[in-house]
Amino acid sequence: MINLKKSDIEASFDFDASVKAIRSCYIAASNKTVSLPPVGHIPFTSVNGDCHIKAGHIHEEPIFVIKIATGFYDNPKFGKPSSNGMMVVFSALTGEPVAVIEDEGWLTDMRTGIGGALATCALAKRSARKVLLIGAGIQCRMQANALNRLFEGSLEFHVWARSKEKADLASKDLAANGLSAAAITDLEDCVRKSEIIITTTPATSALFQADWVSNGAHITAIGADSPGKQEVDQVLLEKADVVVCDLADQSLDHGEFQHAHKAGILKEVKELGDIFNGEVTGRTSDDQITIVDLTGIAPQDIAITGSVLKAYELKEDF
Amino acid sequence: MINLKKSDIEASFDFDASVKAIRSCYIAASNKTVSLPPVGHIPFTSVNGDCHIKAGHIHEEPIFVIKIATGFYDNPKFGKPSSNGMMVVFSALTGEPVAVIEDEGWLTDMRTGIGGALATCALAKRSARKVLLIGAGIQCRMQANALNRLFEGSLEFHVWARSKEKADLASKDLAANGLSAAAITDLEDCVRKSEIIITTTPATSALFQADWVSNGAHITAIGADSPGKQEVDQVLLEKADVVVCDLADQSLDHGEFQHAHKAGILKEVKELGDIFNGEVTGRTSDDQITIVDLTGIAPQDIAITGSVLKAYELKEDF
Repeated sequence: MINLKKSDIEASFDFDASVKAIRSCYIAASNKTVSLPPVGHIPFTSVNGDCHIKAGHIHEEPIFVIKIATGFYDNPKFGKPSSNGMMVVFSALTGEPVAVIEDEGWLTDMRTGIGGALATCALAKRSARKVLLIGAGIQCRMQANALNRLFEGSLEFHVWARSKEKADLASKDLAANGLSAAAITDLEDCVRKSEIIITTTPATSALFQADWVSNGAHITAIGADSPGKQEVDQVLLEKADVVVCDLADQSLDHGEFQHAHKAGILKEVKELGDIFNGEVTGRTSDDQITIVDLTGIAPQDIAITGSVLKAYELKEDF
Repeated sequence: MINLKKSDIEASFDFDASVKAIRSCYIAASNKTVSLPPVGHIPFTSVNGDCHIKAGHIHEEPIFVIKIATGFYDNPKFGKPSSNGMMVVFSALTGEPVAVIEDEGWLTDMRTGIGGALATCALAKRSARKVLLIGAGIQCRMQANALNRLFEGSLEFHVWARSKEKADLASKDLAANGLSAAAITDLEDCVRKSEIIITTTPATSALFQADWVSNGAHITAIGADSPGKQEVDQVLLEKADVVVCDLADQSLDHGEFQHAHKAGILKEVKELGDIFNGEVTGRTSDDQITIVDLTGIAPQDIAITGSVLKAYELKEDF
């Protein structure tokens, strides 16, 4: 069995191959050529933590993956990162263990960044330049870096967070990485001016008002991945012209759209894979408001893990 | 992170501590002092395989466990065992990985044996002597060995399997382990004479007729753990005086009782933990027919894994 640490996978990570694999996996998910048991969720309420278990098999792939991701949100108080986890890889032909990848959540962070950037590229208008990042954690950085790499056209990033200090820190990190980035404090003003809005918070109620959002804007909502979480005003879901998710089963159950779905106010929800595949249309004019909710799906984990193993196996000449 | 192989855990395995922990875990499961996401199931139909992912947390325990168990039933044709898997242990306080235990399915086999033996001890009449094992695979051996160790009174084991050769082999293995064991071919005759019947097959239809079962008999059904599987005649479930399972959510959904439950013919189903706890009664007379279905529950995995870590940590003076 292969045992890889975070440092191994960072060293051999192939961004472009992972992007390609993740794009394909959304198509496989929407085509239902995947086996996906429901996401397992274990809450640890007394220590403000939770664990998500995402497993699945993309048919015809020789491996399948079980991803265990923990989020213990008080950890930073004790000098530990809040995210952790690992990918466990098995043979889909014999059921034997193939690899344990102790990525400490790094692959989840990366595949979430790539998935979000792919969705944003597919749905934002091509002329978009002004990007607002709401939240200043790891996904602020991951989304911005991946989007900057994949979007055709140069982008200006603005970062807003409840803590100005954290927004400053995040924008400095982005700038250090070569991005045009600045922290902002006037959220309403910035929402009104932004053509792309990316929310990456664990919020449980809407972060901005629907009527602040300008025509032509695109919103990528990353944060809501558990029952109770919500980042976007329900009114915006009614106002949006195109509403998209990664996997309807998840998004309507425990993602951003859970509340609107339960309230019965949600119009048609498209799946990202069907848009990538050309089976349904996404944005059809620069005036439309588009919104995508990403809960994160097991095929992303399989895709990025497959890329890692491929890179590693080539490197080690397996 | 601790990395243990099958040979490590076999060497340091504490049977009695595991029995105690597994008995307690059924009580915790019935008391709902556990967090148990639904079992994840991935089918691999083209290669006759499947994977079960059982995860959970017993409240107040410092660890939680994700158990990945594969069964690829054509593997023996290629000289590989059909069962494989691992236990992945995380801290319930920080979400950090604690251990990967590459038990190759050994702990699952052992905890299934112990769980079955505990259930059989709790429900069979005390005077029972004649035990019929249906199926001659690993669980035939595990159930018999654990039961022989835990039951008060000496038992005579008979083994029946579709293949006489395999039944012979299993009974020889049991005899080599000091048990009184013999293979039999007349299933009806042996069912009629048996006071304990243990079914350990992946059958999808009943293995014996309800009217063969004598008053006073106890049946432990181990095999059915997926949609479609069934080992026991539905009529027997109506005829039985006491019907017990490990976890009603699982047994009624994808265990032995799924078919009777869907048909609406199932009377009251008790949980093993409530019987262990004294909250409900099991057998109340030697004439009753009792039946227990065990689908296998994540708390068993947590319990046995906890015992392994404890033994290992003591040994290594952690």
